[in-house]
Amino acid sequence: MPTIKYYLREGLLPPGELTSPNQASYGETHLRRLRLIRALIDLGQVPVARVKEILEGLDSDSMPLHDQIGRAHRAITPTRTPTAGSEARTAAAVQVGELIARRGWKVEPDAPALTTLIETVAALRTLDQDHLVDFLDSYADAVEKFTALEVASVTARTDPHQIAESVVIGTILGETLIASLRLLAQESISKDRWTD
Amino acid sequence: MPTIKYYLREGLLPPGELTSPNQASYGETHLRRLRLIRALIDLGQVPVARVKEILEGLDSDSMPLHDQIGRAHRAITPTRTPTAGSEARTAAAVQVGELIARRGWKVEPDAPALTTLIETVAALRTLDQDHLVDFLDSYADAVEKFTALEVASVTARTDPHQIAESVVIGTILGETLIASLRLLAQESISKDRWTD
Repeated sequence: MPTIKYYLREGLLPPGELTSPNQASYGETHLRRLRLIRALIDLGQVPVARVKEILEGLDSDSMPLHDQIGRAHRAITPTRTPTAGSEARTAAAVQVGELIARRGWKVEPDAPALTTLIETVAALRTLDQDHLVDFLDSYADAVEKFTALEVASVTARTDPHQIAESVVIGTILGETLIASLRLLAQESISKDRWTD
Repeated sequence: MPTIKYYLREGLLPPGELTSPNQASYGETHLRRLRLIRALIDLGQVPVARVKEILEGLDSDSMPLHDQIGRAHRAITPTRTPTAGSEARTAAAVQVGELIARRGWKVEPDAPALTTLIETVAALRTLDQDHLVDFLDSYADAVEKFTALEVASVTARTDPHQIAESVVIGTILGETLIASLRLLAQESISKDRWTD
């Protein structure tokens, strides 16, 4: 398969065990790693360079879990340049700051998701979609439920390697899971309301 | 600005009013459209060709709202080829089918989000992350809350053009909003649990 060669070349997959000069054998560990790579790329839409970073984190014995989560976050959040200090952006930054304070969330000021959230709130206001922004706390309520479920499920594990893998996969594929469920719920409600 | 020229060339923005042979003037409608295009591309990560489809839908007087929503969904859901009928995929399709029946969701069998959901459930099981899949109903509960909020906010409007625009923007930027809120909640909980 050409993709396996590509992953080998990019250093995502370790080389197999040579069984003859031009044949290598791949074991269960390889197969597992290959599945993880495919899921991150195909379903999580993670760029190859970011997959590599994530795998290095998982393979490292000393990288703290919080840093591994940071890598998973960067993998699915494009780095955005904040728009010039427009009025809408300043107002959005204030609103998001208040939300975070109200929630008691501890968030680094340079978290990529923070810039994305502020830019999105500003864009929604500029596009006259204030109603969505007004629901920010209800959205945050629902989102905290996801996070609590995810943490509960991860802490049931004891092996640190398994915890790290679980957290990274959950962060990235959990996003795909939520997004696709949301679209299905929307499709259904739209069909009920807007078709005969 | 080069991007405006690019949007004009791609047919995303209508040409401005010529004020002299090589100068055009752009009014409030243009500015609004430009903001929408930028939000969809930069924040919604929608490919240019899909943006064009969405705008054509919004500009059409006769396209039913349900079809416009379908375009917005396709814009943010990559078309995926279902993996060959593996055991994991068959089991995932059954589980997702049961979930949809239990929820009473009305979903087309070829909805792109359906393929994504099935593939994601199958991948999570294959990667030994069954715990996330076990929470599928809790995820669906939270997701239905988003959808109910979004529908309530949209139906407060009366002008059909505004409703369509609101639904499309809400579908796409709502996704960005939820995803970034989730990452911030995760970052905070991770900091609490996994750093000193």
